[in-house]
Amino acid sequence: MSIGRPLEFDPEQALDSALAVFWSQGYEATSLQDLLRAMSLSRSSFYQTFQSKHTLFERCLERYRDQVTGQLTEGLRGAGSGLAFIEGVLRSIVAEAHNKKKTCGCLIMNTANEFAQSDPRVTRRVTSGLASFRKVFLEAVQQAQQAGEIDSQQNPQALADYLVTTISGLRTMVKAGASAATVEGVIEVTLKSLR
Amino acid sequence: MSIGRPLEFDPEQALDSALAVFWSQGYEATSLQDLLRAMSLSRSSFYQTFQSKHTLFERCLERYRDQVTGQLTEGLRGAGSGLAFIEGVLRSIVAEAHNKKKTCGCLIMNTANEFAQSDPRVTRRVTSGLASFRKVFLEAVQQAQQAGEIDSQQNPQALADYLVTTISGLRTMVKAGASAATVEGVIEVTLKSLR
Repeated sequence: MSIGRPLEFDPEQALDSALAVFWSQGYEATSLQDLLRAMSLSRSSFYQTFQSKHTLFERCLERYRDQVTGQLTEGLRGAGSGLAFIEGVLRSIVAEAHNKKKTCGCLIMNTANEFAQSDPRVTRRVTSGLASFRKVFLEAVQQAQQAGEIDSQQNPQALADYLVTTISGLRTMVKAGASAATVEGVIEVTLKSLR
Repeated sequence: MSIGRPLEFDPEQALDSALAVFWSQGYEATSLQDLLRAMSLSRSSFYQTFQSKHTLFERCLERYRDQVTGQLTEGLRGAGSGLAFIEGVLRSIVAEAHNKKKTCGCLIMNTANEFAQSDPRVTRRVTSGLASFRKVFLEAVQQAQQAGEIDSQQNPQALADYLVTTISGLRTMVKAGASAATVEGVIEVTLKSLR
């Protein structure tokens, strides 16, 4: 292949395919073969474009952060209020508990659980993803406090962390087999605590 | 080796060594070589006693469940009150956030995150572990409600699930790099919500 030859595949689409595999299986359990199959790439195209499984994973983490932050930001804009947005995100986890198929959770939190802080390049992207999601929840809390939906005596920064923590915890509970009723019970306690 | 020959190692101690490896690395990332090294076993002794990596992992999950449930039950007995116990467990996570070294979290929740519900034999043990931990928190909540430390209008079952969810979420946050101050902020919101 000459350097100037155009790529015969769409790198964005290939990234999305890789992201889906990492999201479903985790980093360690994903083989190069899994990735080549999902991305419909030859080994040489893979290495030429994405360098290594690790570099590809880093790009997937960034892509996921940007996609989810975009969805959350749009969700907040579209929701009737800050509290309605928060309630909507929490209630979406009940649907995950109803779904009998394997739930993938959140790629950033899955990665935090898989790597803890053992890999600085991964840690940097986990921290960045978490900060990016948290920012949307902070905005939602502040809007809800201004609208009188959430107790304005409570520290909005702590509430934003609290919501991200609860969402992460609930998604682990769903993976551990918690029923929809269990998830609903936890959501009721959480919503009550905001008032 | 004849069938009647006594084991030349302590199976309980070998189990604990395996448990430590699985807890630190997860199931998938742990190789047979890692296990043999940690357990100081030959390949043949390993297979003779523990059959397979999977069977060994199942026994480690059960052992972890029993050990942690025992510690929690003792902790509740030793604490001054139900709420003091709950507060103590939550505050122990601040120490994890202070510790710069890799934190292992909870083996049961780690396993829920690694496997989701993809493996029935693992799922059964994750569900059993979760139920076992939850039972201690339910007892703590009920004691605290009787003592007037926690609002008795709140559903104790939901509060027990809520606490397990929060603890799981916090441990993921620590793995994602959350600071001790962040963890403390979330704990304050959680404790306030119980009153």
